[in-house]
Amino acid sequence: MRQWRLPQFGRQHLKLEQVAIPTPGEDEILIKVAAAALNYRDKLNIEDGSGGLQITPPLVPASDLSGAVVAVGKRVNRFRTGDRVLGTFWVDWIDGPWPAHALTLGGPLTGALAEYVVLKQEWAVHAPTTLDDAHASTLPCAALSAWFALVEQGHLHAGQTVVIQGTGGVSLFALQFAAAHGARVILISGDDDKLARAKTLGATHAINRRKTPSWDVAVRDITDGRGADHVLEMVGGDNLLLSLQALKQAGRVSVIGTLGEAAIHSPSVPLFLGRPTIQGIGVGHRRALEDMIRAVDHLSLRPVLDQTYGLADLPAALDHLDRGPFGKLVVRMD
Amino acid sequence: MRQWRLPQFGRQHLKLEQVAIPTPGEDEILIKVAAAALNYRDKLNIEDGSGGLQITPPLVPASDLSGAVVAVGKRVNRFRTGDRVLGTFWVDWIDGPWPAHALTLGGPLTGALAEYVVLKQEWAVHAPTTLDDAHASTLPCAALSAWFALVEQGHLHAGQTVVIQGTGGVSLFALQFAAAHGARVILISGDDDKLARAKTLGATHAINRRKTPSWDVAVRDITDGRGADHVLEMVGGDNLLLSLQALKQAGRVSVIGTLGEAAIHSPSVPLFLGRPTIQGIGVGHRRALEDMIRAVDHLSLRPVLDQTYGLADLPAALDHLDRGPFGKLVVRMD
Amino acid sequence: MRQWRLPQFGRQHLKLEQVAIPTPGEDEILIKVAAAALNYRDKLNIEDGSGGLQITPPLVPASDLSGAVVAVGKRVNRFRTGDRVLGTFWVDWIDGPWPAHALTLGGPLTGALAEYVVLKQEWAVHAPTTLDDAHASTLPCAALSAWFALVEQGHLHAGQTVVIQGTGGVSLFALQFAAAHGARVILISGDDDKLARAKTLGATHAINRRKTPSWDVAVRDITDGRGADHVLEMVGGDNLLLSLQALKQAGRVSVIGTLGEAAIHSPSVPLFLGRPTIQGIGVGHRRALEDMIRAVDHLSLRPVLDQTYGLADLPAALDHLDRGPFGKLVVRMD
Amino acid sequence: MRQWRLPQFGRQHLKLEQVAIPTPGEDEILIKVAAAALNYRDKLNIEDGSGGLQITPPLVPASDLSGAVVAVGKRVNRFRTGDRVLGTFWVDWIDGPWPAHALTLGGPLTGALAEYVVLKQEWAVHAPTTLDDAHASTLPCAALSAWFALVEQGHLHAGQTVVIQGTGGVSLFALQFAAAHGARVILISGDDDKLARAKTLGATHAINRRKTPSWDVAVRDITDGRGADHVLEMVGGDNLLLSLQALKQAGRVSVIGTLGEAAIHSPSVPLFLGRPTIQGIGVGHRRALEDMIRAVDHLSLRPVLDQTYGLADLPAALDHLDRGPFGKLVVRMD
Repeated sequence: MRQWRLPQFGRQHLKLEQVAIPTPGEDEILIKVAAAALNYRDKLNIEDGSGGLQITPPLVPASDLSGAVVAVGKRVNRFRTGDRVLGTFWVDWIDGPWPAHALTLGGPLTGALAEYVVLKQEWAVHAPTTLDDAHASTLPCAALSAWFALVEQGHLHAGQTVVIQGTGGVSLFALQFAAAHGARVILISGDDDKLARAKTLGATHAINRRKTPSWDVAVRDITDGRGADHVLEMVGGDNLLLSLQALKQAGRVSVIGTLGEAAIHSPSVPLFLGRPTIQGIGVGHRRALEDMIRAVDHLSLRPVLDQTYGLADLPAALDHLDRGPFGKLVVRMD
Repeated sequence: MRQWRLPQFGRQHLKLEQVAIPTPGEDEILIKVAAAALNYRDKLNIEDGSGGLQITPPLVPASDLSGAVVAVGKRVNRFRTGDRVLGTFWVDWIDGPWPAHALTLGGPLTGALAEYVVLKQEWAVHAPTTLDDAHASTLPCAALSAWFALVEQGHLHAGQTVVIQGTGGVSLFALQFAAAHGARVILISGDDDKLARAKTLGATHAINRRKTPSWDVAVRDITDGRGADHVLEMVGGDNLLLSLQALKQAGRVSVIGTLGEAAIHSPSVPLFLGRPTIQGIGVGHRRALEDMIRAVDHLSLRPVLDQTYGLADLPAALDHLDRGPFGKLVVRMD
Repeated sequence: MRQWRLPQFGRQHLKLEQVAIPTPGEDEILIKVAAAALNYRDKLNIEDGSGGLQITPPLVPASDLSGAVVAVGKRVNRFRTGDRVLGTFWVDWIDGPWPAHALTLGGPLTGALAEYVVLKQEWAVHAPTTLDDAHASTLPCAALSAWFALVEQGHLHAGQTVVIQGTGGVSLFALQFAAAHGARVILISGDDDKLARAKTLGATHAINRRKTPSWDVAVRDITDGRGADHVLEMVGGDNLLLSLQALKQAGRVSVIGTLGEAAIHSPSVPLFLGRPTIQGIGVGHRRALEDMIRAVDHLSLRPVLDQTYGLADLPAALDHLDRGPFGKLVVRMD
Repeated sequence: MRQWRLPQFGRQHLKLEQVAIPTPGEDEILIKVAAAALNYRDKLNIEDGSGGLQITPPLVPASDLSGAVVAVGKRVNRFRTGDRVLGTFWVDWIDGPWPAHALTLGGPLTGALAEYVVLKQEWAVHAPTTLDDAHASTLPCAALSAWFALVEQGHLHAGQTVVIQGTGGVSLFALQFAAAHGARVILISGDDDKLARAKTLGATHAINRRKTPSWDVAVRDITDGRGADHVLEMVGGDNLLLSLQALKQAGRVSVIGTLGEAAIHSPSVPLFLGRPTIQGIGVGHRRALEDMIRAVDHLSLRPVLDQTYGLADLPAALDHLDRGPFGKLVVRMD
């Protein structure tokens, strides 16, 4: 089988190599991978390992995969040959607070950019029935991050206001999930074209932060002075203060991205007066993934796929990732 | 002004009388009532006071009202003359657990079936902007009961399955709220016509309990054996066991109605094996009402009004209440 | 090694037999069992399998064990040889809501009444460091049921009032945990001697239900009319109504036991007016067990052991179980 | 009566003046103040109004008071003459999320440094029965901040580890509440004498941050690598990173103080990998205050009073506040 292997850090070292198909252990399943979705983290891991903990080459990159079970170990009881499955981003994070020993696919564990992958049965879930492989592969990391922030931790409900920053994979899933729950969505971006496309996905309001740098004031106006219930902080740095100022009393900021600076800053007084909850989001657990897949199926929610690439075209896909896609990029194995 | 007054228990004693318009105190508002929605509880209170605690004649019945503020006391800061408002069912239940001293309009406090009503400013909220008076008047009790069970306490989310029993006011609101959150709704009723109408409101499945007495089995089939996430128990008695058997592990039964027996029964073993949460619902608090009104406005959710009556036609409205309306009955003051 | 085996239902069929020591698989550990604690459920399972689901002979009874790891499979990473461990009651219930496929030790899975037991590594936790084997063995079922009801689900805190019924294993753990969190404990029992002993364990008030059948009124008096925050319902039947009447607004009843009738009954009105949460408790998950063990160690909490028996003396231990111990009964393997 | 009045910002302008005793309105109570506790916020408000929002002279400073009801308005039903009461810090924050219109005593509303005060009945609670007036007066702000962070929002339980920074009023209450719930307390301070005194109040571990600047490493060692469950961030600035590194996965940092810098900073990666909840705490609501008072009474918890001053000695008390007391400072009116 073919797989992309990174013998040392640096995109130029990536190598599409031919290796033997692995064999599942007692409690493992062999998956014929159909598609792998790329995340910004994959780019960081390939370049210098900074997308996670304990990432050292050699490495098969990428965490998000969809495919079909083609062989099972003798103690496997969660799946049968032929089942369509997704991998989980964090293996061994089943439910509740994350256990410190959990690891991620695509570094340090072997990743998704291969024609076959072996996973412990506990590391996989049944794929949604309403999505094809390429669309399904986008769910384990980006969609679950958005779902976990808004639904699992945020208990989002109809009539609430959600502020979403940017138009990458996580942001567009957040938009779709928020709209599907009857919430009002205010999208912040620096690109009018992307804002226009986002409105067709269900955004109620779109604010161009280049034209309206004080978008926090605009959010308070839209909400009659009340502020937003949820803000997805995708930028970092001093943007956090805008997020806090856009927030209602006791609202929730989910810190997910670092489009700007990989740090957060805020004066303390807004914390005492607004008593926000600021929560770091690092994807989510398997039970929430299964909840979300049921939602995706019931809603017939369709992930926004910017483009798909063949396995051999990974370098072009990574270039596209550098440019900032609208939604997700997927590598197909066939 | 005119008001309906009950000098002693019994529908035949209801009297439409002429009295002076009341004057608001320092912290009170005078409301010109536009509409009052009827609840089953009003019927019980009129007949024998059994719809609440400490209900003794003389009494102005009904709890749910919409109208406009026409005068305010000197310390009022929540409202201005001209504001459209709703009353709250429980006065002084602002948020959190219900305080034991809270009371209800329409007994023991004076109720809504009058052309003018005085309320403390804390007992009212701003009316939705997208509904007329008649539709808005249906929200404080029936809609809030459904919202409180599913959203405030139940943290309902997309992809979950909700079982709803009956087609009265609470049930239809529950149906609409569940559908608006992307949930799957299974409606149980004994009447095919009502089931057909419920499907047009967003029910995903409709089960006629006369034809399918083991509807719990049907629910498990529909959910691939998993069971429903939420069940609204509207019947009571042994029906609770069906509700528990239709429920997923650690699911939630909200006990709201007593269409059958005013008691619940269950063997204990399903409680230990399914560890459900069974929660009694008695309407809800003001903060949740305000959350819900924002949802109603954003969703343009339209309450199901079976029929409206003039103030003088209260007896006919109560007869209709006896027959079991599809949705709500409203008395208009003009 | 020796183990107790039940070839068919009925206590008279229990047989202490000699079998080979089992061998652990890749992901399993071999435990030399030191002690097994008995639960009322074990008695039911031995008699007719009614203590759980899918309980069919042949069977090694009992779920609660402490011991030491003496061998590990090649993929084991949670434990090393020599580690002191406890089994979990529900295997594969790690955290969050219980997954429907989880099973219990001592039926249908092979149980604790043996000198050696093989468990998957995920089914065991590290033993507390402050307890000997006999005391430690009492934690997985009885202690965790009490902890799960009060702490994990109930968020018990200082100054709250907890009503506990009876003086069996679960009740005494509940008493100790409640006292350790600074709560007020009202113990209800029919036996003055047991009430006196319970007071030495931290009960603030003791009520003899034979002398004070309206103990709900007594609870309201003790709480200045407010009612208890938590009630552990250990009796069933009409006792539930007393529990609800003893409860504060929006309080919590945890249904754990069936000392009286294996069913619950209640009129509906107290559910609407008091809006209690009634939750069935079926032990709890592994994460909560680990939380509880940290608490036991920090508090130096000592489980109440009524008596220990040798492995061969199981029949005498079961007779004692029939009579109703004060706290726990333990079978020691050495 | 005498009261301290601030005609313009600046401590030198404070004036002990003689004014008429105020008269309660329909819904108000007149309190003969017995004691007022000082908070760091009062010092800021006196100097430049920076301790709150909309603070402008003239002003009667201080928010925390205990006293007795000496007169009631005609609609008052929560209190009777003779009742011992406390004021609430935030008036009109009854329960749930804080309503944006709520205000605080001692600026902008008239404050506690007076012999008599009029409050709306909703702004007061019954005093604890086990504390004298001076000790009781310390509860509304400092104690409630600690309780709200750890108990109301944090669901603290036995066996958890709490890191507390500093030895001011909030920190010592946090220490006492954590110990009373069976938690392990690690206290961080720069003063060995204060650490020694804190250990007598129930701190399990004491770390001098001058001698152990990497106290986060020490916390991880004490917790066997797991990290603390709760950290009370009292310092601000880069100290937040130490707090996050001391925290377990999905732990909770409550931002309460700014002993160092009035801002917070953190790199983003620890937020994604540790997914902490960072919550700003601004005292708390009335329901939690009432819960806490029940706990204080049941636990016989005694607030740490550093010193009491007579009403005329306010300047000396403010000097003491500048020096950093161990626990609370109280002004007595008699």
